[in-house]
Amino acid sequence: MRKILVIGAGKSTAVLIKYFQDKSVSENLHITIGDISIQNAQNLASNHPNSKAISLDIFDKNSREQAIKKADIVVSMLPARFHIEVAKDCLEFGKSMVTASYVSPEMQELNDHVHKKGLIFMNEIGVDPGIDHMSAMQIIDRIRNQGGNMILFESFTGGLVAPESDTNLWNYKFTWNPRNVVTAGQGGAAKFLQEGTYKYIPYHKLFRRTEFLEVEEYGRFEAYANRNSLKYQSIYGLDDILTLYRGTIRRVGFSRAWNTFVQLGMTADDYTMTNSEDMSYRDFINSFLAYSPTDSVELKLRHYLKIDQDDIMWDKLLELDIFNPDKKVGIPNATPAQILQKILMDKWTLDEGDKDMIVMYHKFGYELNGKRKQIDATMVSTGEDQTYTAMARTVGLPVAMATLRILNKQITSTGIQIPIHEEVYEPILKELKEYGIGFNEKECEYLGYNPDGVKG
Amino acid sequence: MRKILVIGAGKSTAVLIKYFQDKSVSENLHITIGDISIQNAQNLASNHPNSKAISLDIFDKNSREQAIKKADIVVSMLPARFHIEVAKDCLEFGKSMVTASYVSPEMQELNDHVHKKGLIFMNEIGVDPGIDHMSAMQIIDRIRNQGGNMILFESFTGGLVAPESDTNLWNYKFTWNPRNVVTAGQGGAAKFLQEGTYKYIPYHKLFRRTEFLEVEEYGRFEAYANRNSLKYQSIYGLDDILTLYRGTIRRVGFSRAWNTFVQLGMTADDYTMTNSEDMSYRDFINSFLAYSPTDSVELKLRHYLKIDQDDIMWDKLLELDIFNPDKKVGIPNATPAQILQKILMDKWTLDEGDKDMIVMYHKFGYELNGKRKQIDATMVSTGEDQTYTAMARTVGLPVAMATLRILNKQITSTGIQIPIHEEVYEPILKELKEYGIGFNEKECEYLGYNPDGVKG
Repeated sequence: MRKILVIGAGKSTAVLIKYFQDKSVSENLHITIGDISIQNAQNLASNHPNSKAISLDIFDKNSREQAIKKADIVVSMLPARFHIEVAKDCLEFGKSMVTASYVSPEMQELNDHVHKKGLIFMNEIGVDPGIDHMSAMQIIDRIRNQGGNMILFESFTGGLVAPESDTNLWNYKFTWNPRNVVTAGQGGAAKFLQEGTYKYIPYHKLFRRTEFLEVEEYGRFEAYANRNSLKYQSIYGLDDILTLYRGTIRRVGFSRAWNTFVQLGMTADDYTMTNSEDMSYRDFINSFLAYSPTDSVELKLRHYLKIDQDDIMWDKLLELDIFNPDKKVGIPNATPAQILQKILMDKWTLDEGDKDMIVMYHKFGYELNGKRKQIDATMVSTGEDQTYTAMARTVGLPVAMATLRILNKQITSTGIQIPIHEEVYEPILKELKEYGIGFNEKECEYLGYNPDGVKG
Repeated sequence: MRKILVIGAGKSTAVLIKYFQDKSVSENLHITIGDISIQNAQNLASNHPNSKAISLDIFDKNSREQAIKKADIVVSMLPARFHIEVAKDCLEFGKSMVTASYVSPEMQELNDHVHKKGLIFMNEIGVDPGIDHMSAMQIIDRIRNQGGNMILFESFTGGLVAPESDTNLWNYKFTWNPRNVVTAGQGGAAKFLQEGTYKYIPYHKLFRRTEFLEVEEYGRFEAYANRNSLKYQSIYGLDDILTLYRGTIRRVGFSRAWNTFVQLGMTADDYTMTNSEDMSYRDFINSFLAYSPTDSVELKLRHYLKIDQDDIMWDKLLELDIFNPDKKVGIPNATPAQILQKILMDKWTLDEGDKDMIVMYHKFGYELNGKRKQIDATMVSTGEDQTYTAMARTVGLPVAMATLRILNKQITSTGIQIPIHEEVYEPILKELKEYGIGFNEKECEYLGYNPDGVKG
């Protein structure tokens, strides 16, 4: 039996475990699930004969080492900051490992040692990062192999609510970490490349500079820029590209309404508010508006942000009940972002039976034989239920597939890796299709930034 | 002879030295001026018989100690971060000292030791901080002594250009550190108290939430909120006050136009721009605007920020020549704020013969015998020339006056001090009047936040 150790029995792990269990006979696998909560681990093991649940505290050096020593390969589904502890043990005991997280600087530092020991530490092999890398590199490599020259790459991903569960005016519910949604885009200007020029968007303008995206059968979406669109420029081999842009997908109208919170200052996470615990939702809003002895919080907000009475944005705010004087914040020493998150969680939490949806959209612009061309590739994946969510499936399946392929020596490039090589993306994208996770590709006219052919 | 050591021969020091020199015979003073540049020190000593210039490197422990040992009192006019070195020596050798800078946490830590040695380390005795403390506490103490109860305190200061030198559309020139002007208000939301409620303004809204101020003979000004209006709440004894607000004064219309730079992201100082050295001013502006194959930088900016063609704001931008494609930035790895500063320095540098102006405005609201009352106090000080600027005079004179009074044992409270006690503010404010630096006080109706008596 080949022994797989999965550390962390969190949200995405159910899909991953089921994949291994389903293949445990044909592939001769034994799965150990280690979590700080033995109950969580047991739930995932679910009495499957080739599974075992163990209690594993990642900060208990001894039990961590014992578990890793016994394994043939290790999957870390822990929060990203804990991978490095696992990685160091894997290096010491000569085990390959897989994570869905971004490569941290500390992880990257291990590269030479991991190489020398002939190990593979595969990272960023979830959905974003993960499926985005694989699907992008498959098409970029194909264009290059045909002799094409990349001039534009835009890539967008969004975790959304499935159309059948889309029941609020924002067309949005929290399908992943709400905190990341509330603070998205903060920490410096968004930077990207447009037609050879570096462009910068400050945070407070981010949600007013969106692009539209049309996905067949699903309609129109919008996207706002990620903070650093240039992160993978060299890694993807796009040093000479003219346009490089990465963004986050929402339904049209979300960003315009979200901008209300940004403009008021309600997404700030760098200071705590005095008396936050006893504030009502209405007090919270009023903290960002000037005092008036006569005017209502509602009118002050409308006037401040120039919101017309018949603007749908206003209904979106009312739907969140933000003007309620009776609902208390109830969190001591809270930042504005923490309070906003609480208000949103009242309304944006998935109901039982609600399904989520992952949407990905790539645009590839290139020159081939003197002609400019474009390929658009889209992927939509909908969750089955609240366990087999789209997020859990699109993160868990590629992690599982990569793990098995490393175990089977079908993936061979050693060191700190991300899934940008053919030996990884080709078979995994193919297998993902069998699970209903695939891209719709179409060739289209290269439009660049003048789709309507307007003359200057 | 009583020996005064002045360390740092910078901008504000000329006025200070002249004050000591003028009194050197009557008060029996000898002034040693130490600067890293002996030339600077000599210029200020200007062969006055009771003055001596010495070369003094603050990081050369030996020469610093020698100089301080010989002095009876030390004035540090160094940049704020260097005071602590001087302070430690003063403590060791038993010398009192005076600075115009904010009390740093390290300085505050010395308090017990300074007390024990019976020394006085007087800080924050320039203009802002300094004259603001003294003039505010004089009126607050008077109101309290009459049995009044403070309900409102607002305090505003601005370093501006004098009316006779006011020659540009912004009604502004740099009269002090330009860098502080460009990055003013950054680093977290502005926080203040209005009618018992804490209010917060995020940076990107700061310049749209101004107040107007009318100063007799000088017309209308505006003010935007300082980051922390509550810093002196307890120190001034205003723990139960309903309204507490501190702000920075500009001429009306400055903030609205400055907001253009904030909205575009041009004041950001937390990242450097790629290729900044070779950028033209026009390229710089265009970095913050979306790419267009057809539209001009001018129209893109107007549309983005919705600036009408007949808006005076537009003329202000043109006056700065920000759309010039031939002027180069010329600074490698520059932040947006550094580039903006350069563009502004082309236009906002004082011409020879230009005079500066300091404006201060306090509002005191209080209840006395069941009636609400208000006192407004204003101070305007205009520079004489580019040496005896309003800034140098309003900083240098109170520092010099406090130094002499400590030497004469007329100021007696020991420890780390700021000028909020009567023994300091009463004589110094009186003497400042002899130098033409005084406040205009008037009693007015208490207006609060409903000056027009609007009904809700």
